[in-house]
Amino acid sequence: MEGFEMKLLHTADWHIGRTLNGYSLLDEQEHAFDQILQIAKDEKVDGIVIAGDIYDRAVPNPEAVTALNEMFRQINLKNQIPIYAISGNHDSAKRLNYGRDWMEFTNFHLNTLLKEAFTPVETDDVQIFMLPFFDPLDARVYYHNQGMSEDEAKKITTIGAAMELVVSDMVKLFDPKKKHLLITHFAVTADGQDDDHLTSETTSKVGGLATLTASQFKDFDYVMLGHIHTRFASPSDTVRYSGSPVKFNIKEARLKNKGKGVDIVTISDSTIKEDYRPLTPKTDLIVLEEDWDTLCDAEFYKQQPVNKDWFAITIKNFDRSEHAQTNIRAELQKRYGTIIELDYQVDSNNSEFTNVTTNISEISPEDTVGQFFKSITGKDLSAPQMSLVENIFNEVEREKK
Amino acid sequence: MEGFEMKLLHTADWHIGRTLNGYSLLDEQEHAFDQILQIAKDEKVDGIVIAGDIYDRAVPNPEAVTALNEMFRQINLKNQIPIYAISGNHDSAKRLNYGRDWMEFTNFHLNTLLKEAFTPVETDDVQIFMLPFFDPLDARVYYHNQGMSEDEAKKITTIGAAMELVVSDMVKLFDPKKKHLLITHFAVTADGQDDDHLTSETTSKVGGLATLTASQFKDFDYVMLGHIHTRFASPSDTVRYSGSPVKFNIKEARLKNKGKGVDIVTISDSTIKEDYRPLTPKTDLIVLEEDWDTLCDAEFYKQQPVNKDWFAITIKNFDRSEHAQTNIRAELQKRYGTIIELDYQVDSNNSEFTNVTTNISEISPEDTVGQFFKSITGKDLSAPQMSLVENIFNEVEREKK
Repeated sequence: MEGFEMKLLHTADWHIGRTLNGYSLLDEQEHAFDQILQIAKDEKVDGIVIAGDIYDRAVPNPEAVTALNEMFRQINLKNQIPIYAISGNHDSAKRLNYGRDWMEFTNFHLNTLLKEAFTPVETDDVQIFMLPFFDPLDARVYYHNQGMSEDEAKKITTIGAAMELVVSDMVKLFDPKKKHLLITHFAVTADGQDDDHLTSETTSKVGGLATLTASQFKDFDYVMLGHIHTRFASPSDTVRYSGSPVKFNIKEARLKNKGKGVDIVTISDSTIKEDYRPLTPKTDLIVLEEDWDTLCDAEFYKQQPVNKDWFAITIKNFDRSEHAQTNIRAELQKRYGTIIELDYQVDSNNSEFTNVTTNISEISPEDTVGQFFKSITGKDLSAPQMSLVENIFNEVEREKK
Repeated sequence: MEGFEMKLLHTADWHIGRTLNGYSLLDEQEHAFDQILQIAKDEKVDGIVIAGDIYDRAVPNPEAVTALNEMFRQINLKNQIPIYAISGNHDSAKRLNYGRDWMEFTNFHLNTLLKEAFTPVETDDVQIFMLPFFDPLDARVYYHNQGMSEDEAKKITTIGAAMELVVSDMVKLFDPKKKHLLITHFAVTADGQDDDHLTSETTSKVGGLATLTASQFKDFDYVMLGHIHTRFASPSDTVRYSGSPVKFNIKEARLKNKGKGVDIVTISDSTIKEDYRPLTPKTDLIVLEEDWDTLCDAEFYKQQPVNKDWFAITIKNFDRSEHAQTNIRAELQKRYGTIIELDYQVDSNNSEFTNVTTNISEISPEDTVGQFFKSITGKDLSAPQMSLVENIFNEVEREKK
């Protein structure tokens, strides 16, 4: 493998079909996609890696299906760029599996079932293992089908134990003359990282979901992850999240480091490195926390991207009795345009936030928990907590299918 | 086109994912599929035509998706037989469209949108037009996109009017040196057929659905239809229903001519003819209408395929008071095995049938209407009536998507 170079574009968590308080993000996702495709063409990449959560839900709406099909068509058929895609916990593994054998003919590689993960895609220099999201039950079924006794299989109760088996089976397939890449979709934490919200006791209750650490993947030269929406959650230099291309909620918009983008991963005989390529939103999500007078002050709001971006506004020090006759939302919409979330903070000495206007039926279950958590603790859910909540609701939805 | 011969297997209305009073028909459908594939191989056909209603619903369950994918794989990838498939009114056109461009590479032709119907599949001797189910609104949108004025497009209010435009546009594409085949999915009646249940006034109320007649397709050499589940509904010698491969309800099981099968259509320069190939059920659906004593008589029931087939039983001359202490269903199950429907006829001089035990939540809306119709009129819905009822519920479901 002397002198070879392979370039992959690493992205994940597209969540096609996602809505934000009832607003469709499809326009925004298509705008991000156009940039991703352009980067892939400019960089002349050897493939685009999509590390799971391609759709936002097990049964995406027809518009989401049409949009994703067109994105895949643009990448793989129109521009003849290989695709390496896996399903995440938000995708229905069985539904997304449909058609994969036909896609294979044009180097569109798609794995959604655990059993498919043990046939790496091979180039002269690289083995690419594609491991879709799975849970311990999937592993028990798989290993029992492989001849493991039922008693033995029943011992696979955590994702950590399952992953140990899976990785060791992959290592057996390693060609020592090649580099070994893994694409997968899990919450992976840095070794020794102390996360008191995710003790093994807690996580075992929800199927052992967040117990993976970077060292479990030490046999791979590089791991391209999906699941957590920010690249800053990457647990090591070689075990990396690309983050999602689009901001999906207020919390993501509020982060100091908002950077949404993709990685160009360059694999050569000597090194593997990633270069970050930022994506620009079409309609940004602006979070404002100000008092009523400031919000209504032309000097303030004329400096905002009004009537262009979307706003999530929290009115500070708000005394409702002073504004009993005012249609708060209408007044703000007149000045700002689209307001996708409107909160008010009753008392500045008190962290209690109350949501006045959002229709609960338009909020995802995850956001409902997040808002409840915030109203009780005054804090947002951390990235691992949010991921845990998402997993739980996803498990629930999976069980309904 | 001298001396050519093309053989197509014509089937339709697979309705993968269908249930019958809560019982899955998937086993039965897979059994029928195995026979269809064997016939296709034995006959060395040049393609399998599936004329719509491939799935039973817009959002089939994951098992149905997996099963259909495997059937397609068997036909097209394992046995390299071309597929000519269209969506029917039960399918979601947008969902089923996913992946079609990749399938095209292996001669798996799949049309689900009206706009796709104007690119026939061409061989040296034959043009195959594949027209998926559509409604007048789809036609209005399509023709407006083609440059028709909005006022003009608004005049397309019936499927009859829409079909006239569609067929004339297809005729413009005719290569006079070739035979012209059409695959489509509609209720088509014989010319001059007097169906007082389906006057144009009635049908215009539900979007003009059943107003197509065989003569509208006279420009085609042969038309392969889906939609009505019996081949005996074929409106002319060259406009043919293949029927569904599996019995889907008691009414279909009650028909004298139960024949479920497929057609082998042989197209040559001089003639086009179809040969019927019957399919054998794995688990048949047996309809019994007898009095209680006969049903419990060993001499009677031992002649039935007990503990093998499924039974739909109507107890005649039934006096409930005589059997107040009897668990009717349990007694019959002991003797017959699986009973998917149990009715009783209260009084032999009265055609009133009352359903005693079926859980209404397990019955499809179509069957509910059918049973209500029968309880009022004493008659089953006719095939066109049933098709009309199915269309209405399907329209309702489509609008929910």
